[in-house]
Amino acid sequence: MRIRPGPAGLWGLWKKKTFTFAGPPDRLRLESGAEIGPITLAYETCGTLNPDKTNAVLVLHALSGDSHVAGYYDPKDAKPGWWDIMVGPGKGIDTDQYFVICSNIIGSCCGSTGPASVNPETGEEYGTRFPMVTIGDMVEAQKALLDHLGIDTLLSVIGGSVGGMQVLEWCARFPERVRSAVPLATTSRHSALAIAFNEVARQAIMADPNWNEGHYYSGKKPDMGLAIARMIGHITYLSDESMRLKFGRKLQNRSALSFEFGAEFQVESYLQYQGKKFIERFDANSFLYITKAADYFDLARQYGFKAFSRCRAKFLVVSYTSDWLYPTYQSREMVKAMKKNDLDVSFCEIDAQWGHDAFLLPNDRLDHLMAGFLKGVFDEIE
Amino acid sequence: MRIRPGPAGLWGLWKKKTFTFAGPPDRLRLESGAEIGPITLAYETCGTLNPDKTNAVLVLHALSGDSHVAGYYDPKDAKPGWWDIMVGPGKGIDTDQYFVICSNIIGSCCGSTGPASVNPETGEEYGTRFPMVTIGDMVEAQKALLDHLGIDTLLSVIGGSVGGMQVLEWCARFPERVRSAVPLATTSRHSALAIAFNEVARQAIMADPNWNEGHYYSGKKPDMGLAIARMIGHITYLSDESMRLKFGRKLQNRSALSFEFGAEFQVESYLQYQGKKFIERFDANSFLYITKAADYFDLARQYGFKAFSRCRAKFLVVSYTSDWLYPTYQSREMVKAMKKNDLDVSFCEIDAQWGHDAFLLPNDRLDHLMAGFLKGVFDEIE
Repeated sequence: MRIRPGPAGLWGLWKKKTFTFAGPPDRLRLESGAEIGPITLAYETCGTLNPDKTNAVLVLHALSGDSHVAGYYDPKDAKPGWWDIMVGPGKGIDTDQYFVICSNIIGSCCGSTGPASVNPETGEEYGTRFPMVTIGDMVEAQKALLDHLGIDTLLSVIGGSVGGMQVLEWCARFPERVRSAVPLATTSRHSALAIAFNEVARQAIMADPNWNEGHYYSGKKPDMGLAIARMIGHITYLSDESMRLKFGRKLQNRSALSFEFGAEFQVESYLQYQGKKFIERFDANSFLYITKAADYFDLARQYGFKAFSRCRAKFLVVSYTSDWLYPTYQSREMVKAMKKNDLDVSFCEIDAQWGHDAFLLPNDRLDHLMAGFLKGVFDEIE
Repeated sequence: MRIRPGPAGLWGLWKKKTFTFAGPPDRLRLESGAEIGPITLAYETCGTLNPDKTNAVLVLHALSGDSHVAGYYDPKDAKPGWWDIMVGPGKGIDTDQYFVICSNIIGSCCGSTGPASVNPETGEEYGTRFPMVTIGDMVEAQKALLDHLGIDTLLSVIGGSVGGMQVLEWCARFPERVRSAVPLATTSRHSALAIAFNEVARQAIMADPNWNEGHYYSGKKPDMGLAIARMIGHITYLSDESMRLKFGRKLQNRSALSFEFGAEFQVESYLQYQGKKFIERFDANSFLYITKAADYFDLARQYGFKAFSRCRAKFLVVSYTSDWLYPTYQSREMVKAMKKNDLDVSFCEIDAQWGHDAFLLPNDRLDHLMAGFLKGVFDEIE
């Protein structure tokens, strides 16, 4: 793959940058057998790579994330990157110590090649002509990025949810390039329940007449369908308890029931707001492709029953008590399989009421765990 | 309200019948303040009312149920009524002992007045001009049915899910007419999580262009929207465990991944099938109205903090370990409040892996509990 400068030199308050790299002549052969190229990957880095190149940490984002993991592009930005609570100077993943890399996954719509990208062969957006991608394909593309950056071995690969699946995939696919790994709030095998939610969300998008079999880039977008898909997702990111505490049965801007359809309860209003906000920043086809990649994810399917026997990394596995999308028992199963394969694994179930989303929320315990874990791995090299 | 014979004398293998009763001149004043009439209620009975009229049991159906609680209309019927495992000769609710009544709720579409009914004032289907109905309104209509049948006091009111809400409403609204009550897999207060799922399902219906603000009876129906709504519902009726056992990651009619959108996994195929089956038998507007009634349900909102102090019934409260829509803790809260009000209450949490739907599945323990509980209450009268 060939390197070219990014679309804009988005220098931030921190040493952040966005570049893209792409081919031809290289094409990526995907797990499905299809080939695609050139591939562009949007990525950002933070911190400084040490001369021995031993302090690189790859952070992997979830379904709707992007490469902007932390910090600000501009002082006027309303919000920092999606994991700013964890990544930064003196934070759990300390950018004074480590060189942090985060790239937008292929299939997404935040700078990397995905269904909304223009197919150079046709001059039109791929739409559903984009080939199906898997978690493995995402990781293959990330590996090409690391080759470009000249980084042979990662100090750690870290990510939650769909990002956690990429973490596990990295460890099984390129064991010799990963010293340690932190999969958070994730699973090694997407469950029937998780597939079910994704499928209904996809159905909502595909039922939107504006979806038009995925070819909507020159017309109206399937906004209603995508908003509903996001609302379904949002329910699974929260928990019964967090919704009770946050919303309960509180009404939105009224003191009595209106006996009309529409957002009467605060929880309804919240979900509708989340749906509307999402359609401004995300592509419906990307939602279809990335959820499908998650559904396909099953480490055992790909690497056989002894998937973890391939791994060499030191693991810190983290789950959350109220995460019912990827419940703790799924992390425990993972930990059990790792231990059977004599891997060095620590496991922590964090007591949190905020459901699956908890891994994105401030948590002192996780900050300390993460910092301590990374320090331990780094000290072993030094 | 005036009585008239039902649309068809559907005599079954058992002594079942379908009648409807209706006004004018009577109109029902609803909780919202709106009035509606005439009202038709479809209902069925099974067993024989004893001379003292002390053996009547009212069974209340859930969201998509109907008056056909058990037995067959015709030997050629593919399936019996929806709770045939529980209601019948020698069963948990023994029709050799008790006179069982079940009526379709108002707002529904299985014979009782609902949004698909013709408004006699306009000669057109109500559509969304149908007034909002509450669980209390449903119970008011049922009370009119009991008056018509000449039944003053019910031996028991029994129902699960939305039917269980009606059970609780009966006990608080007409305490002097209910000797005992069995609310199963239900709640006294619809949670934010439950509201959230209902709202997303409603959004899916209302996003379907065929919905046409609820006026679709002379054109295409919002089938896609209703199917998606049902799929969302179905996920909440199952459980992580039951889906893992039933489907896991098994593929549908194929041995390898197809890398295409469409129902690849069995769980996807199952949900799509459930969605398609549902649109053949249910009205999308009824789905909107009944889910809204469930969302409004909050016994404390209506009767104040001491809602249960109004009740006189003897209770058997039943919950299921894997029901995450109305989890056991909600039943426990209910039981606690009942006990505080010195009510005679038994509580049973049944160990079941099938989620919320468990109350509709065969369970010996529940059969015995139910039979014993009813016998106890009946013996006290005799």
